[in-house]
Amino acid sequence: MEKMKTVFFLFDDMTALDAVGPFEVLRGIPDSEVIFASLIPGEINCKGGLKLISQYAIKEISEAGLLIIPGGSGVHPLLENARLLEWINTLHCSSLFTVSVCTGSLLLGAAGILKGLKATTHWNHLHKLEAFGAEPVKSRYVIDGKVITAAGVSAGIDMSLKLVSLIKNETFAKLIQLGIEYDPDPPFDTGSPDKVSPQLLELFLKANSAPGKK
Amino acid sequence: MEKMKTVFFLFDDMTALDAVGPFEVLRGIPDSEVIFASLIPGEINCKGGLKLISQYAIKEISEAGLLIIPGGSGVHPLLENARLLEWINTLHCSSLFTVSVCTGSLLLGAAGILKGLKATTHWNHLHKLEAFGAEPVKSRYVIDGKVITAAGVSAGIDMSLKLVSLIKNETFAKLIQLGIEYDPDPPFDTGSPDKVSPQLLELFLKANSAPGKK
Repeated sequence: MEKMKTVFFLFDDMTALDAVGPFEVLRGIPDSEVIFASLIPGEINCKGGLKLISQYAIKEISEAGLLIIPGGSGVHPLLENARLLEWINTLHCSSLFTVSVCTGSLLLGAAGILKGLKATTHWNHLHKLEAFGAEPVKSRYVIDGKVITAAGVSAGIDMSLKLVSLIKNETFAKLIQLGIEYDPDPPFDTGSPDKVSPQLLELFLKANSAPGKK
Repeated sequence: MEKMKTVFFLFDDMTALDAVGPFEVLRGIPDSEVIFASLIPGEINCKGGLKLISQYAIKEISEAGLLIIPGGSGVHPLLENARLLEWINTLHCSSLFTVSVCTGSLLLGAAGILKGLKATTHWNHLHKLEAFGAEPVKSRYVIDGKVITAAGVSAGIDMSLKLVSLIKNETFAKLIQLGIEYDPDPPFDTGSPDKVSPQLLELFLKANSAPGKK
């Protein structure tokens, strides 16, 4: 039997954790192989200086069991890349699940995939989903048919555990959670705009309002 | 003013999320730069097929504000690498904090740094800390002086937020938490051996008992 392909799309100025959180969970799916693809194969410069390696050009990959699109400020220059949007659509046609993390959902939107679907993204970009015909939902992740969109960055971990339970079963997802000791206990409770003071929210928005920042 | 160096040690068969979780948090510390170092610079093969790039050989890096040692099965062949252990010790001498995630603590232990300290690691390896003269503590992360050890894989995110609050301040840590939308809500509650059924624990231990597995 051929292995299921879990395909991550990588790009410059992506947020590394958007991809690596899900990677650490999804790589545990039995009889699957993880593939990294990008417009041009080679070094990918993530936000903050980490470099990942993409093995394949997207044109070399014509199908995926799971297609995972991470986010980050590098999404914005890609929103009008017709070749990329067509590739996303092609893989989406035969995927088991098409998945985004954070602002990766904007790429799914630009590819036309979110039309008429409930979807989410990073809280600070949620209002942008309507322009793609999606119904924005404030949620850790949203499953609508075979399209799964996760909220910002770290939400990809929660979403991926759910995804493993759907692809394989709950026992398997629980074993992976135990393996990555995902028993979260953050020292603060400021992971959502609903949980922070107006002052902190204003500070955040001021720091993140520069063009191109995410 | 010279920037504070946040130095990640990378190695083959490391667990990518051990490093990338903290990276996504710590890269936000102002006036700091992130550096990746390894025995030989170049491609690092993480467990599961992801490749990261290390820019520097460890011999090129002689000091760190923060030294971060991730874990993974690749730790084991390094425990007797005298050159590496000496490097860890050298950087530890002048670091602000010396930090491990998951079984990275075994490398700190082998370097003699945990002697007489409280420390933690991945739950399935906690018993190994005593051999290094450490006092094993079951905790998401343990701070003992300037040595911080985090539990398995995902615990590096919780630990790093705390670390930012120590290096900079709580407001800054909270802003980063909001930025990575770290408002965890896993679909299952099986991230700790204390929270799973004996059957699930047995399944996990059986699947992870092969030599070299973590």
